[in-house]
Amino acid sequence: MAARVGIVGLGYWGPNLARNLSALEGCELAWCCDADESNRDRWQHLHPEARFTAELEDLLTDPQLDAVAIATPVPTHAPLAERVLEAGKHCFVEKPLAQDAASAERVAGLAEDRGLVLMAGHLLCYHPGVRQLGDLIARGELGEVYYLYSQRVNLGKLRADENALWSLGAHDVSVLLELDEGNPSEVSARGEAYVRDGVEDVVFAYIHFDTGLGAHLHLSWLDPHKMRKITVVGSERMATLDDMALERKLTIWDKGFDPSADTYGEYITRSGAVWSPAVPNDEPLRLECEHFVDCVLTGRRPRTDGSAGVRVVRVLEALQASLDAGGASQPVGAAVGTGAEA
Amino acid sequence: MAARVGIVGLGYWGPNLARNLSALEGCELAWCCDADESNRDRWQHLHPEARFTAELEDLLTDPQLDAVAIATPVPTHAPLAERVLEAGKHCFVEKPLAQDAASAERVAGLAEDRGLVLMAGHLLCYHPGVRQLGDLIARGELGEVYYLYSQRVNLGKLRADENALWSLGAHDVSVLLELDEGNPSEVSARGEAYVRDGVEDVVFAYIHFDTGLGAHLHLSWLDPHKMRKITVVGSERMATLDDMALERKLTIWDKGFDPSADTYGEYITRSGAVWSPAVPNDEPLRLECEHFVDCVLTGRRPRTDGSAGVRVVRVLEALQASLDAGGASQPVGAAVGTGAEA
Amino acid sequence: MAARVGIVGLGYWGPNLARNLSALEGCELAWCCDADESNRDRWQHLHPEARFTAELEDLLTDPQLDAVAIATPVPTHAPLAERVLEAGKHCFVEKPLAQDAASAERVAGLAEDRGLVLMAGHLLCYHPGVRQLGDLIARGELGEVYYLYSQRVNLGKLRADENALWSLGAHDVSVLLELDEGNPSEVSARGEAYVRDGVEDVVFAYIHFDTGLGAHLHLSWLDPHKMRKITVVGSERMATLDDMALERKLTIWDKGFDPSADTYGEYITRSGAVWSPAVPNDEPLRLECEHFVDCVLTGRRPRTDGSAGVRVVRVLEALQASLDAGGASQPVGAAVGTGAEA
Amino acid sequence: MAARVGIVGLGYWGPNLARNLSALEGCELAWCCDADESNRDRWQHLHPEARFTAELEDLLTDPQLDAVAIATPVPTHAPLAERVLEAGKHCFVEKPLAQDAASAERVAGLAEDRGLVLMAGHLLCYHPGVRQLGDLIARGELGEVYYLYSQRVNLGKLRADENALWSLGAHDVSVLLELDEGNPSEVSARGEAYVRDGVEDVVFAYIHFDTGLGAHLHLSWLDPHKMRKITVVGSERMATLDDMALERKLTIWDKGFDPSADTYGEYITRSGAVWSPAVPNDEPLRLECEHFVDCVLTGRRPRTDGSAGVRVVRVLEALQASLDAGGASQPVGAAVGTGAEA
Repeated sequence: MAARVGIVGLGYWGPNLARNLSALEGCELAWCCDADESNRDRWQHLHPEARFTAELEDLLTDPQLDAVAIATPVPTHAPLAERVLEAGKHCFVEKPLAQDAASAERVAGLAEDRGLVLMAGHLLCYHPGVRQLGDLIARGELGEVYYLYSQRVNLGKLRADENALWSLGAHDVSVLLELDEGNPSEVSARGEAYVRDGVEDVVFAYIHFDTGLGAHLHLSWLDPHKMRKITVVGSERMATLDDMALERKLTIWDKGFDPSADTYGEYITRSGAVWSPAVPNDEPLRLECEHFVDCVLTGRRPRTDGSAGVRVVRVLEALQASLDAGGASQPVGAAVGTGAEA
Repeated sequence: MAARVGIVGLGYWGPNLARNLSALEGCELAWCCDADESNRDRWQHLHPEARFTAELEDLLTDPQLDAVAIATPVPTHAPLAERVLEAGKHCFVEKPLAQDAASAERVAGLAEDRGLVLMAGHLLCYHPGVRQLGDLIARGELGEVYYLYSQRVNLGKLRADENALWSLGAHDVSVLLELDEGNPSEVSARGEAYVRDGVEDVVFAYIHFDTGLGAHLHLSWLDPHKMRKITVVGSERMATLDDMALERKLTIWDKGFDPSADTYGEYITRSGAVWSPAVPNDEPLRLECEHFVDCVLTGRRPRTDGSAGVRVVRVLEALQASLDAGGASQPVGAAVGTGAEA
Repeated sequence: MAARVGIVGLGYWGPNLARNLSALEGCELAWCCDADESNRDRWQHLHPEARFTAELEDLLTDPQLDAVAIATPVPTHAPLAERVLEAGKHCFVEKPLAQDAASAERVAGLAEDRGLVLMAGHLLCYHPGVRQLGDLIARGELGEVYYLYSQRVNLGKLRADENALWSLGAHDVSVLLELDEGNPSEVSARGEAYVRDGVEDVVFAYIHFDTGLGAHLHLSWLDPHKMRKITVVGSERMATLDDMALERKLTIWDKGFDPSADTYGEYITRSGAVWSPAVPNDEPLRLECEHFVDCVLTGRRPRTDGSAGVRVVRVLEALQASLDAGGASQPVGAAVGTGAEA
Repeated sequence: MAARVGIVGLGYWGPNLARNLSALEGCELAWCCDADESNRDRWQHLHPEARFTAELEDLLTDPQLDAVAIATPVPTHAPLAERVLEAGKHCFVEKPLAQDAASAERVAGLAEDRGLVLMAGHLLCYHPGVRQLGDLIARGELGEVYYLYSQRVNLGKLRADENALWSLGAHDVSVLLELDEGNPSEVSARGEAYVRDGVEDVVFAYIHFDTGLGAHLHLSWLDPHKMRKITVVGSERMATLDDMALERKLTIWDKGFDPSADTYGEYITRSGAVWSPAVPNDEPLRLECEHFVDCVLTGRRPRTDGSAGVRVVRVLEALQASLDAGGASQPVGAAVGTGAEA
């Protein structure tokens, strides 16, 4: 039995989903939907197995269709997801799940009420290196995690409709929430819109967790370097995940300060071995698509479910509020109250 | 004719000053002063030309002594500098000039009143790479400077009496004030004290200038990497100064966004040539010492005079206030009002 | 008008040629030929525009077919190319043109006799960075070129039918002959077969030109590093082409020794600026295919014509002779005597 | 009790020996000898504890002197060492021990006859990273060592009296002979003298051991890069020692080819974990000096004794013969026949 999936949105990212879903065993790419005729024309010959349409309604009324993946502009994520779920289809939504926390909660609640699979496209949560880093932390190999920082910068596509916080930061926030079991309590962010008025191209964000963990994000598409890197500093060891590295993506550093045996209150610097476990080369996007299809077929709850989608949007919303307030610290909204948790 | 200089403080940094001053033509190392006998014993044999004492008074009352260099713990900088200036000697003070802006202003004002040379030990302002970077910016080679960020992190000495902001950040703030002609208007900082209570080992600082320039500092002695790097992003080009690089310390990147000729409001990514001018290998510390001796001999005003010292302390003070306030933005104090500017 | 091209060999490399040729304007992929049914089945759905066959004869007897590209195992290159040329079709042959110089000469001579386009698939000669490096040298920007060395190592596919010299070295030899106008006069090579008996996985080769130029190749698929790098040392400047670098692939170093002005016979080390011109991102394979199609359509002589193919094979043959002789220096065969030069 | 040591030669390297020996407990720097008055004047004030002289005879006739360290130009190594040993003093000789194998054997034999300590200054054999690499190999962690290669290149001092083989290659040959238990059986070398007639600035050398091990050296002081790196390829794992790296100097790579379980004669590429043990930061030169002093005081045989010195010179001599013969393979002379082995 194969899951029959349709895709909405053939702009920048949708075709990647189409390609991956269509190549998966257990999945049949049944529909491709985009209002723009040129987008449809461009991809139709690559997916002769799918029907192409401008009307979402064609997908929603197809009784054979199991699920819909949404890869449209961010403002449409929540409204489209609601239509999909109300039509009784399982739903995948590109990150972020919605543009505001209230909408994200509504979508997540709807999926719970209807008993449908809702998966937020938090791509990096399916990165084998992120998974291994999370395992390391959970096993306590770094000791107590003091803080971490992420660098996600390059000279990239200048966006008009999303700032660097929402476009790049959604990745890091989703990873953060996977790595730490605590809850973000308050945040602050500074940033500036240099090239295009009103769209921040550079953002520095700080997230404080109720566990004491601090996290800093440097987000920019206006930078001479290309970095995709997370550094985690623990009381026993440190770790880095460098996604631009061809090898040694994940590295553990036996570094830190040890209390001196001789003098109370003094510390000795420890700089020991450094090692990099092998990280499988599996593409995160393929793993993400596999996971979605598996959840659709089995009814299992996705690792990045509606609740995870809501949590990410809440942090982004609070960071945006701080950005708008010139860096003043902002609280992060209360724990998600979806039907699932009621 | 040679300048006769004495040094106060033979702890961590003072011996480096002693070694450099003593090797300079035009300078005679006349006195070394430290209250700790073991420090005096340790260095005496290397400087047979100097007299060693525990008493600052010995230096202040030596009519042959022209100048005193202060390399003692930060809290003593301002009080000692005042004594030196009141005794009519020229004065060099390690960075930061003082622990608070009011004291720094008092020291700077005293030097102006007495017509004495006062130089703040802003070492990086004498780094050939920083000088070249400053020239690049001043010539407009980067276009309008949008923002810059500095990374000054390593697994370093765990300090008990200075946090990462004052210990590491003083370097970056002094450079910043050299690179931009504007004034810092407001700042914010987040940081945490992980290893030693009350002493922040990791600080993220943001400085906003009245020219619109933004600057971000990442300061830490609790990090797996060793970075000493400044990245400047301009409207025309970008530049990096990487002090850990053995070659290509200074690099200019012909990168940015150009307005599209075809479509109004669209931008094209430009990723052109990259070049690294030769940067002389001269040691910043030697150049700094030379400059001080030259100022003492000629009466010239140092590049990093009392006024520069005051400006750095003001920014650090405002950042500390923000750190204490959990990141809330803080204004930077008004322009320095020393006698020189009255 | 479009060139109608057929491909022979759908193993490792042929499908890449098929994909590129089929995407080119001015080219029609008319035939795909492979004796192995599973290979044909695997690629047929991607190229619905082409006819698939097990018989080369189908291509040779198609009067509409203009040209054939050969991507079969090396021993078959020359015999297949002869059949193609004798059938009156233009011919592209993957590198190396043949397994021995005599066969290569026969093929090259045949193309000249028939007035047909014969192009050797010296891929790197179409690399934009190699072209720029060649221009630099030709313009004299490096001064007199003293020597160059290439590192082409990784942990790669362990081959059974070609050693590292023929498989990896063909790339470097073809580039060498482009970069220098002289002729290789004698060569030596050392190497060992560590993993598979009789197939050298590591080869060190040295090529001496009649211009005095020396060139050294390090070829290996048994190495912890992945390097694709050429270093050129000239009397005035040096240059590197690092194909693993994402940026700054081509770099010019203003380094060398200058005669001292003071002391006759003494030299001063010069370590000046370093710069990296932008290198277009165009894929060498696409450029190579475009060039072949252009030659087919216009009758122009390819940059890597039969004569170039012969020269590369001659050098490889001499290096293999030295390898077999335990490193003893071997002369390189006389200049090619094709009809074109008669 | 302290060893009383004298130094001969205060040119480029001698002062480093003087500084280290003089700082060692258990060693007294008694004499510094150099025929050049300006050399003596330059260093005398740094070593008030030593007597300075132009006459070696002053050292040889001092009954209190235990040992002499020779850091003079290479041609004088053997004659001076013979005088020192004949005067009954222990002797340290900078690498290489002599300019030809016959002289080296004479010096080594003399030390054996007289029962004196003779130590060759094979600095890298005292490098903690080389020691750890040697232990790794000896413990079999790399499996069977297939081959290794060394890169020792930079833009360095242009020498007039030693070529790159003798000046740079002596380091690598001494390390090689430590790492492998076998004997070099035959060698070949290619090189050219580009800047200064008759003095090769670039040499590629190949050394074949009777154990089957192959070793390749790339030696140059005419290169844009600065590399000090050894790569060892074993049947189970690979290792690199990168002396230019500030961290991760020694790295072990779990890489190689494994026989396929499915298909006889097929191999699977393995690319597993990568790790870097901590390498102590101890300076090789200090360790070398400590070892010499310890041998002088205890009569113990140095790790790099006369016999080791002879073996290195024999390999260099054979490589030079090959260089002179345009790369023709040369045998390495028979095992050393010093009195010790008789």
